[in-house]
Amino acid sequence: MSATSDARFVTSDSRPALARPDPTPVASRSEVVVIGGGQLARMMQPAAIGLGIRIRLLAEGTDAAAARVTPGHRVGDHTRLDDLRSLARPGTVVTFDHEHVPAEHLDALVRDGVLCRPGPEALRHAQDKAVMRARLDELGVAQPRWSLADSVEAVTAFAEAGDGFPVVVKTPRGGYDGKGVWVIETAEDAREVIQAARTVLVEEKVPFRRELAAQAARRPSGEVVLYPVVESVQTDGICTEVIAPAPGLPAGTDAQARAVASRLATELDVVGMLAVELFETDDGEVLVNELAMRPHNSGHWTIDGARTSQFENHLRAVLDLPLGPTAARDPWTVMVNVLGGALEDLPAQLAAVLDAVPQARLQLYGKDVRPGRKVAHVSVSGDDLETVRAAARRAAAVLTEGV
Amino acid sequence: MSATSDARFVTSDSRPALARPDPTPVASRSEVVVIGGGQLARMMQPAAIGLGIRIRLLAEGTDAAAARVTPGHRVGDHTRLDDLRSLARPGTVVTFDHEHVPAEHLDALVRDGVLCRPGPEALRHAQDKAVMRARLDELGVAQPRWSLADSVEAVTAFAEAGDGFPVVVKTPRGGYDGKGVWVIETAEDAREVIQAARTVLVEEKVPFRRELAAQAARRPSGEVVLYPVVESVQTDGICTEVIAPAPGLPAGTDAQARAVASRLATELDVVGMLAVELFETDDGEVLVNELAMRPHNSGHWTIDGARTSQFENHLRAVLDLPLGPTAARDPWTVMVNVLGGALEDLPAQLAAVLDAVPQARLQLYGKDVRPGRKVAHVSVSGDDLETVRAAARRAAAVLTEGV
Repeated sequence: MSATSDARFVTSDSRPALARPDPTPVASRSEVVVIGGGQLARMMQPAAIGLGIRIRLLAEGTDAAAARVTPGHRVGDHTRLDDLRSLARPGTVVTFDHEHVPAEHLDALVRDGVLCRPGPEALRHAQDKAVMRARLDELGVAQPRWSLADSVEAVTAFAEAGDGFPVVVKTPRGGYDGKGVWVIETAEDAREVIQAARTVLVEEKVPFRRELAAQAARRPSGEVVLYPVVESVQTDGICTEVIAPAPGLPAGTDAQARAVASRLATELDVVGMLAVELFETDDGEVLVNELAMRPHNSGHWTIDGARTSQFENHLRAVLDLPLGPTAARDPWTVMVNVLGGALEDLPAQLAAVLDAVPQARLQLYGKDVRPGRKVAHVSVSGDDLETVRAAARRAAAVLTEGV
Repeated sequence: MSATSDARFVTSDSRPALARPDPTPVASRSEVVVIGGGQLARMMQPAAIGLGIRIRLLAEGTDAAAARVTPGHRVGDHTRLDDLRSLARPGTVVTFDHEHVPAEHLDALVRDGVLCRPGPEALRHAQDKAVMRARLDELGVAQPRWSLADSVEAVTAFAEAGDGFPVVVKTPRGGYDGKGVWVIETAEDAREVIQAARTVLVEEKVPFRRELAAQAARRPSGEVVLYPVVESVQTDGICTEVIAPAPGLPAGTDAQARAVASRLATELDVVGMLAVELFETDDGEVLVNELAMRPHNSGHWTIDGARTSQFENHLRAVLDLPLGPTAARDPWTVMVNVLGGALEDLPAQLAAVLDAVPQARLQLYGKDVRPGRKVAHVSVSGDDLETVRAAARRAAAVLTEGV
């Protein structure tokens, strides 16, 4: 446990929401630049269409998931400042499909007068897990015990100071979907990654009951809204299923999770969506695992399951528009990810999927199918959790394997 | 009343659903050609994104409502067969934003092997009101008493055979949103339109209680689903507000309205969405006013208010995919049209609208604002009709007039 575990829970109103002078020029409210053409940018487009907002997309290629549905997208490299500047002009609002834009480029854009949302200071906490861990300690937010290590000996020392092995080793930057994360049984298992990454993050392996996610949306003017806390089921480090709301969540745990999301959104000056991935311990406490400052897989259920989707609230937030209600529309919504499987042509499966589960809500990402790649998701809403979950799993199975 | 008013109500199961050999090739299930770039085509795009279907759009211009949100659209003229053929290739599924493609072009496309959905035979009933009226008489479906007239004297004769003036005069083709429809107090008032149109439709002015709309979706394989019957509030011939479901609708009237929609979908071989606009008489009968074979303004409430939107079920239907559930998600949804008013820059009003009504569901059409033009709509859902209606009207007023 963290050295700060005595201060694990801090209410969201212990610090006032910031009211900072960061108004969006009205003229820019009709347009948002999105960096990155993955499925998150793709799913912003339906929300943008409704609001009459034009998304100007910088995509990896013309066949990127979002490029396929966004007119007039530009193909470019998010690691090249010139490519970023081709769309991110002074006064424009810029947001992101991923966290991989180099911090120095973000700083340069801000100097240009671009409205980066979230901004570079906030994004550092999503880009670098060591920065995030250090800041959470400062804020007294509960998290797994952690340390930086630049040698096998340091990993051993970390383990021996706690409950021993296994421990978790992470590269501070660039990981996602379980990439850049290893559970190791001996310090020697860390040698290769330390040689490659030089410095790694070592964390205790928390004996958690399950994983939760708490999402907030926050505007520059300070308004924060919170979504219902969900259960996130992970398989091999990849989110495979989300249950909204988290079944049987004790009221105190729910309040803790929401308070952490609210407080981090404000303290880290997040603009847009924030996802806080949490471990729920056996004693009902929550520990922060990861942060993401963008729409997140744990919030895909909101497209059809909540009053306002995370994608719409992300756009509303980055444009400093009033945020929409976040309540669930049904007692239960279950979202199941479709990972690349046996079938390559997903639209060819539509008849079979909708025949099996006519009420399934589908999002096909328009990506080439590769094994294990997130290529679609399915959600089903209703009154009975087991029925809903079975239907969502069935639809995903038909889309993955045809059965 | 119609000469066939004794056969006003025919149950939908009096004739079996057609099961015709019209399968969609699986390969074409990833693509739909849409003719016409208005707001209906625009609102198909979010549904297409979710289903992973590519819309190939023929639009009037690059700034058309749908062209703004559809990559790779083609600019062309729906009255030119070559322009239609540039997208409508043999084996492709083609559907429509409007009814204005000339019938002879539709016939030519069918001869090419294009899958026009709905097909030319069905569409004739939406394109030509005289064809529709004659067919409804044949089917024994209740409708206002009507006649064709090619002289002022014939109009007088029609009026004198019934309750006298006023009567309703319509051009058989090309009207929409109250255009091409006149309520006349003397036969002389019809002289000008008869001279221009040569033949007009004359109809009794039904003393109706209110207007209703019943929507169905139908697949080529015969499956029909019915949406809840709604009340459609018209102002100067333009739909301004839709209440879903129609408040206080007697069960018998509801059943009649649904049965008419179901029967017409099947009898007219509609593929895609069918909207049946109805008069509800004081004695609880329904008379068919107009038909539309496409998504319709009376179904915009379904985007956020129903389990499956009319736009998604239209795409599912034309691709012969299983149809989605049509139930309302809330006790009440009210949709209010936003007609062009004092304000020209609708996105600039987003902050004011969402501040006034954060739960408003918006669709801005991306069209230039002209007085009286449909440029957006707003819907609000909830448990209390008066609260919901007041909120929807308030949001529309802010978008129209800023207050």
